[in-house]
Order: sequence, then structure tokens, then C-alpha cells
Amino acid sequence: MQRYFAQAKINNEIKLLKNDEYHIKTVMRMKNHDNIEVVYQETLYLCSIENIDTMNIKIIKELEKNEEILNKITLVIPLLKEQKMDLILQKATELGVSDIIPFYAQNSIIKLEKDKTEKRIERWNKIVKEASEQSKRHNIPNIHKIHTLEELTSLIGEKMICSTTEKTKNLKMFLQSHPKYDTLIIVIGPEGGLDSKEEQYLEQNGYEKVTLGPRIMRVETVPIYLLSILNYESME
Amino acid sequence: MQRYFAQAKINNEIKLLKNDEYHIKTVMRMKNHDNIEVVYQETLYLCSIENIDTMNIKIIKELEKNEEILNKITLVIPLLKEQKMDLILQKATELGVSDIIPFYAQNSIIKLEKDKTEKRIERWNKIVKEASEQSKRHNIPNIHKIHTLEELTSLIGEKMICSTTEKTKNLKMFLQSHPKYDTLIIVIGPEGGLDSKEEQYLEQNGYEKVTLGPRIMRVETVPIYLLSILNYESME
Repeated sequence: MQRYFAQAKINNEIKLLKNDEYHIKTVMRMKNHDNIEVVYQETLYLCSIENIDTMNIKIIKELEKNEEILNKITLVIPLLKEQKMDLILQKATELGVSDIIPFYAQNSIIKLEKDKTEKRIERWNKIVKEASEQSKRHNIPNIHKIHTLEELTSLIGEKMICSTTEKTKNLKMFLQSHPKYDTLIIVIGPEGGLDSKEEQYLEQNGYEKVTLGPRIMRVETVPIYLLSILNYESME
Repeated sequence: MQRYFAQAKINNEIKLLKNDEYHIKTVMRMKNHDNIEVVYQETLYLCSIENIDTMNIKIIKELEKNEEILNKITLVIPLLKEQKMDLILQKATELGVSDIIPFYAQNSIIKLEKDKTEKRIERWNKIVKEASEQSKRHNIPNIHKIHTLEELTSLIGEKMICSTTEKTKNLKMFLQSHPKYDTLIIVIGPEGGLDSKEEQYLEQNGYEKVTLGPRIMRVETVPIYLLSILNYESME
């Protein structure tokens, strides 16, 4: 069944976003009394479209919640080319990321002008919303404002940097030494990696350098790789 | 340093493919005496371009081989839309897959006409060759002919199906019960999963059904997810 995130809930009625109303009417060609799933404030409802023209949607009942199996994972990623960024946002959402923080990295080839950041963040929010619907999540990852390196030091949680210079401490060792965490914050570098000064600065501010193993991965593969492993580690 | 797979090696001289010669001359704009890395029969050589016009390439010395950390992984994937197929081929190569077998699945929406298969396989080979160069592998994954369901039963190795119906045996349990393997063969279904008859047929022929956990992933995410985990499991 098609799933949407609601804009508002007033008593027994659901109000969707204009885009989703369009999707229901024009793309899905639904009719009166068709059912949809709607998530509002992390609660899942079975709903009926009472009137497709006025978009009057009624809650039939609350559905059971799948427990989220992951603790909170925050991905900190450099500004990347649009296609790579989109792939990361979509796949990280599928794999249960909770927060995404873009940041200005020294070696990032993308320089986003100040007046364009708002539009870009809007676009990113759209991608994670759609991916959340498709993968039937109960919540949508939070996309944060673009951070500077300094701002990364005030984040709270267990913190790691995917390092290309670290030789000894690999991801398995890191996760073994952090068997439990509330929030895991992972910094991923751009093509060519983090600048050594950036790495050093983060290390002095509570981040641990971790190697992901001997493979040479493209930057957009790294978050998918990491989240796959974190999902696997949380399997009973 | 740029890496290429050689077409031939005659004594101390390397012969590259026409495409790669074009890449060196026109894209990379290399000059006489520039060095490149060349892989021939899984051995890595440091080479010098003696003459950029005649493409005379000489071996300087043999380089050390990184040990491949994975055992052999064979991915069996349904025919998918081009974009999804390309993503799988590229990422699976980065993550160390050894063999890729496309197969005709009941629920696959892609029907490839017989006369087009050869061209398609040629295209797939090009993608995995380029991804092998980029990720500095010593070998290129083998792309096999498109198999029928019946032909999948004659493959030799430990065999699993990524199942959407299996409820109890998850990937972690499967890997714990197969701590060592020479070749692991993994069948991935199309959107909507394998047909129940296909699943049953494979199960009767040595394949084990395995669930990947509660997440709802797009089909192209599944191979990346699996290979990430297999890399992680092989970490010391």
C-alpha cells in the first residue's frame, strides 16, 4: 500500500502536502474509498480517501509500529556533485540513517554559494521524504544546515572519522570498542579524503580515526557500506 | 597513478586496448616517459610510456600484489533497468565481487531480446573493467551469459537466496553456519521478489533462503548491502 507523510492531523482527519495530493490523484489515479498508509509524528495510520476531489482523508485505525532496529546514526558528508549526493541521501534513508549533516570540507570540489543553500536543502529534504515513503519508514531523516568544521566539534555522541591515513584501527575494532551507543556520528571525507589538518583538528576534538579496510571505494559508496554494516551488526 | 588492464604482454612490452590508448593520449594527455600501472593476468606492473605516438609501453618492474581479502562471491541478479544494472555492476566491482550471473526471473519487467544480449554483455564488461581500474583491483569480475533458473542449479559453492518470505534465518545466522567458504553464490530477486515457485525450485536444489532483516531496500541496494557485510566479516 502507498505510504505518505502527513502535513497535519486534526482529530480524525489527515491533511497531506500538495505534492502528495497530486501524486494520489494524477499519478496513482486513486478513487473514493481507496486506502492509503499515512505517517504522522512517527505513528502509522490506515486511512481512507473519503473524497478524492476535496482530498478529504479519514483515519480508519492506528497500525502497529515496527521497532526501529538502529540507534541514531548521524552521517556527516562533504558537499558532493548532485548525482552522488542524491544517491547517498536515497540509500542512507533506505538503510535507516537518522540525521544528515553536510559540511564544508577543504578538498571538496563543490562550492555552494550562500544564496543557493536554502534551495539545495529543500531539494535534499524532498529526496529523503520520498525515500522514507518508499522504504516504509516511520520517520524522515533530518537534514541539517551545512556545518563548518568547527561546528562539528559540538555534536554529541560517539564520533568517528573514515580515514585514509589510519592503518591500524579498523571499523570492526571500533565497533567492538563501542558495543553500545545512543548516537554514532560518522564523518566521511570528499574525493581525496579529508585534509590532514582537518583530520587532526577533529581528532583533537573527540573524533576517532578508523580505516574501512583495504578496498578503494568511491566516496558515495562509503555511507552505503557503513550503514549496511551497522544494520548487520544490530541483527540478533 | 592511472591503472589499466593490458590486452597482451610480449616479453617486456605491454599492449593496451585501443580505448585505453585513447584515454592515455587524449583524456589524460600523457607524455613520453610518463608512468602508468598495468595489470596483466592478475599481476601488477609499473610501466613507462616509451613513445606516446606508437604507444610503445615498457615494463619497469613488477609491483607487490595486495592480497584479495574476499573469497569468491558470485552475484546472481535478475535483468533490471539499465541504470540499476549499471549501479550494481560498478559498486559490486568496487566491493570485490568475483562473478556476476544475470538470470531470467519470472517477475523481472525487463525482457531482453536474444539478438541484444551480446551487445548488453559487452556493455556490462566495459563497466566492470572501468570500475576495476578505478578501484585498483588486480582482476576484473567475470560477467557470465544470461542463465535460466535451471542453469543456476548446476553452480558449485555455498548457495543462498535473498528471500522476502523467510522469517527466521537471517544473514548473520547463515554466515555463522558457513564461517568458511570457497565460493558463495547469492541469488537476488527482482522488484517484488522471486516467484514462490522459483524460490521453491532453488531451495530443492541446494539453495538456502535467508532474510536480510526488516528494512525495505530497493533491489539495487541489496548487492551493495551484502558485499559490504561480506567485506566487514572478512576484517581481522
